[in-house]
Amino acid sequence: MNKASLSRLLAAALAAAVLAPAAAHAQDRVVTPTRLYAAYRDRADSLIDAALADSSAYQRLGTLVDRFGHRLSGSRSLEDAIDWIAAEMRRDGLENVHTEPVMVPHWVRGEESAELVSPRRAPIAMLGLGGSVATPAGGITAPVLVVGSYEELERRAAEARGRIVLFDVPFTEYRETVRYRGGGAVAAAKVGAVAALLRSVSSGSMRNPHTGSTRYDTTVARIPFAAVSVEDAMMLHRMQDRGDRPTVKLVMNAQTLPDAPSRNVVAELRGSERPNEVVVLGGHIDSWDVGQGAMDDAGGSVAAWQAVLLMKKLGLRPRRTVRVVLWTNEENGTRGGLAYRDQHRAEVPNHVLAIESDNGVFKPSGFAFSGPDSALFMVRQIAALTDRIGSGTVTTPGGEADIGPIMALGVPGMGLSVDGTRYFWYHHSQADMLDKLDPHEMALCVATMAVMAYVAADMPERIPMGTPQAAAR
Amino acid sequence: MNKASLSRLLAAALAAAVLAPAAAHAQDRVVTPTRLYAAYRDRADSLIDAALADSSAYQRLGTLVDRFGHRLSGSRSLEDAIDWIAAEMRRDGLENVHTEPVMVPHWVRGEESAELVSPRRAPIAMLGLGGSVATPAGGITAPVLVVGSYEELERRAAEARGRIVLFDVPFTEYRETVRYRGGGAVAAAKVGAVAALLRSVSSGSMRNPHTGSTRYDTTVARIPFAAVSVEDAMMLHRMQDRGDRPTVKLVMNAQTLPDAPSRNVVAELRGSERPNEVVVLGGHIDSWDVGQGAMDDAGGSVAAWQAVLLMKKLGLRPRRTVRVVLWTNEENGTRGGLAYRDQHRAEVPNHVLAIESDNGVFKPSGFAFSGPDSALFMVRQIAALTDRIGSGTVTTPGGEADIGPIMALGVPGMGLSVDGTRYFWYHHSQADMLDKLDPHEMALCVATMAVMAYVAADMPERIPMGTPQAAAR
Repeated sequence: MNKASLSRLLAAALAAAVLAPAAAHAQDRVVTPTRLYAAYRDRADSLIDAALADSSAYQRLGTLVDRFGHRLSGSRSLEDAIDWIAAEMRRDGLENVHTEPVMVPHWVRGEESAELVSPRRAPIAMLGLGGSVATPAGGITAPVLVVGSYEELERRAAEARGRIVLFDVPFTEYRETVRYRGGGAVAAAKVGAVAALLRSVSSGSMRNPHTGSTRYDTTVARIPFAAVSVEDAMMLHRMQDRGDRPTVKLVMNAQTLPDAPSRNVVAELRGSERPNEVVVLGGHIDSWDVGQGAMDDAGGSVAAWQAVLLMKKLGLRPRRTVRVVLWTNEENGTRGGLAYRDQHRAEVPNHVLAIESDNGVFKPSGFAFSGPDSALFMVRQIAALTDRIGSGTVTTPGGEADIGPIMALGVPGMGLSVDGTRYFWYHHSQADMLDKLDPHEMALCVATMAVMAYVAADMPERIPMGTPQAAAR
Repeated sequence: MNKASLSRLLAAALAAAVLAPAAAHAQDRVVTPTRLYAAYRDRADSLIDAALADSSAYQRLGTLVDRFGHRLSGSRSLEDAIDWIAAEMRRDGLENVHTEPVMVPHWVRGEESAELVSPRRAPIAMLGLGGSVATPAGGITAPVLVVGSYEELERRAAEARGRIVLFDVPFTEYRETVRYRGGGAVAAAKVGAVAALLRSVSSGSMRNPHTGSTRYDTTVARIPFAAVSVEDAMMLHRMQDRGDRPTVKLVMNAQTLPDAPSRNVVAELRGSERPNEVVVLGGHIDSWDVGQGAMDDAGGSVAAWQAVLLMKKLGLRPRRTVRVVLWTNEENGTRGGLAYRDQHRAEVPNHVLAIESDNGVFKPSGFAFSGPDSALFMVRQIAALTDRIGSGTVTTPGGEADIGPIMALGVPGMGLSVDGTRYFWYHHSQADMLDKLDPHEMALCVATMAVMAYVAADMPERIPMGTPQAAAR
């Protein structure tokens, strides 16, 4: 017995031990773990081996992003990419390939720039934030007030009037730091600022600014809001600390146009016994309007697509339907995920599991899951089948933006967990290009999603739904 | 005896053992290593401790680069920075502070851009190479031929006529890869290309292109030459590999103006016994016209300056003169180093040692040295005094660009060796900003240079000259 086989057996035994108490309470719904492991070991290995045998997923991703570039909601490149994907899916022989209409926000960046005009003149690396209003023609030139937090802005509120407030908040974790991208314009407007700047939400920078969406509220004026590079934010902060009084000119011609038509892309492998029960997996096909959106999230989209294609190629048609969905408009609206929920509301109770990859197709470690405990036990058993490639761990809670709406209705859901070291170096920036991903790591993601989706769709017992709302992230 | 003291003694003993045969041949010139070590231990510790006691070197560097920005030869910001530095040196109480005139090349970038126009339109991240000619008004639009080497260009010479040749050469080491930056335009012109592009010479990229100088020769037409980001080069290469035929529009308005006046900055601590003998140390104060030139090489310049200031502050006036020189125009002409040689030709034989820091003030490991063996043995003894901070290693060969001209005349010379992991991530790009350097690491560089310069200037025996030419790198 080799080491890998031993560790598989140990993993299965461990899963059995963990599951034992739950199984006692829910014997009729939960399969015996060791039986599940044994039943699917060969098919899981086929999927893994086929995924790792070549770099076809990466090649397809490269063709997609090099041919169409980035894909912001409302853009021609997004719709062209969707047309191409649907055509390729049909050529692949996937079933029920179609698109589903979604009206999406249509924000366009236009010409934009930021310049330090005093104490010296120098260009500032910037990207307007998605949804921001424009500056007046001719821009806004004003002294900058740099603050390190909302608390500091509150303390220095009296200094903010008529100035451009820069939030220079060092990256800690995304969830924490991104609060300033979401709420910075409103907070700055409340204290009388004429515009706002944000230190890019990034864990490593080579002066590449990072965009992303922001929001306004109805209580204060909408002021222009842009991200500047980490380096520029630090420089402006140092200038202020030295007693210099940096002045910046900000020019933004952003526009929010009427909502535009877009589409979710759908393809299936219909189930052999229970075609009305569905495992849905996917990523989002839209991106920001910089770089190629290769990591965020063409990679996740293509990985999900290739996972389903792999089943077809190996002749592994599961009992339930496996459905790949490439959602549109995750970045600035989540309209794709909402439209999927609305268009499929009647069949939501038939959704056995929802899987999304939206953290970059880096080296996978498993999934982050939310759903009932009995479902958690079941997906942990399935995940043990990818232990041999290091991606057998299921943590909680979990989920992703596009599957959030159906998870809120009780569908158990999971996001692919990957090595996050470099994600926020490239995220929403010009650096999000194909070369940041690795063919082997992407193949590992394909394998991990394929095994999870296939077994969840094929195993005799269905994964149980949770309670509506309670399962929301 | 603590561990650090023990390692110091061991280092000294080892140095003595290594030195023994040479000492036998040159007893009258070489001091006894253990005596040198013992004689300077306390003063070396004072310099090290003072350098590490605060972040004043880093603060000064920050003031310099934030106030003046980048400093290309011929620019106002370079001359303003030089004025400010000379004034600060006088305020520091350094001696014989003055500037020495140097005529420098005056290349200006102007407006420039590159755009993929087929198979789709997309901006390409680029920086014209220093010295490049402009495109005609309206730019050059042509299909691209991507090659991976000069050899491939030769094989595909017939395909190059009328095209833009892109050298997509992955970074191996600088010396190897930079050959394409230097010679790419000439090689491409020889086979009839209308312009040339270069994959940036960089070991890690977030789509930040890297500039640097290029050259022409008299045998072929001067064609425009620009660096593109690593990401863009890889994308164009992939497109070609797929059978697409990428077409690029290149626009460059670069100009080479008549030579402009600049200056080397000089300051001294005059020797107490042999003031005519000189240890010179420095960096180059000019930079490329992107980022802040903080790493390359304001950091080395300020570290050398602060090393001399440290001696003054501690009352450590050496027997010989210690001279800090901030050379101008290292980047695109080395005119500062040549002018220093020419203006000081008569006293070159009195130069005991030349030290330059031009690899970024990252964590130092010691020096890379070229000079006679007897000189090598002496500087290795001195270097042992900085073993306690990890920077006691002297390797061969060594030197730097600005001290090259006097090294060619026989002056022993050394470059500061540092952790090079990140240097070619930022080098000659917009990312070369203050935040890439660390206050403590910079202080270690100051300490390392201060100890080497002070002891070389103060030790009873002088470090011997080499033979002219033979000592050249």
